[in-house]
Amino acid sequence: MKTKFIYTGIRVKDLDASVKFYTHVLGMKERGRTTLTASKGIVVDLVSEDDEGPALELNYYEKGSRFDATYQAGEALDHLAFAVPDLNAALAEAKNGGHPVVLEMKQPGSRYAYIEDPNGIWIEICQAS
Amino acid sequence: MKTKFIYTGIRVKDLDASVKFYTHVLGMKERGRTTLTASKGIVVDLVSEDDEGPALELNYYEKGSRFDATYQAGEALDHLAFAVPDLNAALAEAKNGGHPVVLEMKQPGSRYAYIEDPNGIWIEICQAS
Repeated sequence: MKTKFIYTGIRVKDLDASVKFYTHVLGMKERGRTTLTASKGIVVDLVSEDDEGPALELNYYEKGSRFDATYQAGEALDHLAFAVPDLNAALAEAKNGGHPVVLEMKQPGSRYAYIEDPNGIWIEICQAS
Repeated sequence: MKTKFIYTGIRVKDLDASVKFYTHVLGMKERGRTTLTASKGIVVDLVSEDDEGPALELNYYEKGSRFDATYQAGEALDHLAFAVPDLNAALAEAKNGGHPVVLEMKQPGSRYAYIEDPNGIWIEICQAS
């Protein structure tokens, strides 16, 4: 079938902490927020500041929601990738914000490293060449 | 910091089954494939057929890779969303391909439903209005 991949929805434990991480540390902006009565959830729609590229949706489920299962990050989401103009500066800023590098990967021709979001999700920070 | 969200990386259990699902069922195309010696992994880069929108990266780790942990889908990845022009036709096609609807959500003004990928990841199929 013909489809268009439009966004990724992650589940978050603490909505405020996650919004703060993605907007303050990674500089995304909140484009919209919806309360879903059917799922007892709140959905926050985030985009990169220039409003380009994919959207990221934060999914929070209230206590009593049928989707409020015990949170284990699991394996399905390997990582989310964010490009920056200056890797060293970005990593220093993330570290100052309480998000130190957890893994550095060096491949020929590329520079990237990983930090963790407040849910334990791996965030790839990569230098745009 | 200023960043640009560029792609989502999911971890897959069976690379061939996952490539088949995302390319045959959801119509994405393989844009590139890389073998990573450091992580003993294979990365497949997928985009929607028109090459617009975000990229999806399939991350496969070989046996013996330090990242080859027991696969549990977990909670971090809530869902991946794909827009289609005709929801009923898309769901019928997915069902014929062995991917029946697992949850239908009806909200005022929107039509969408979920199927599962071969890793147990929830795929939202939503009708573009």
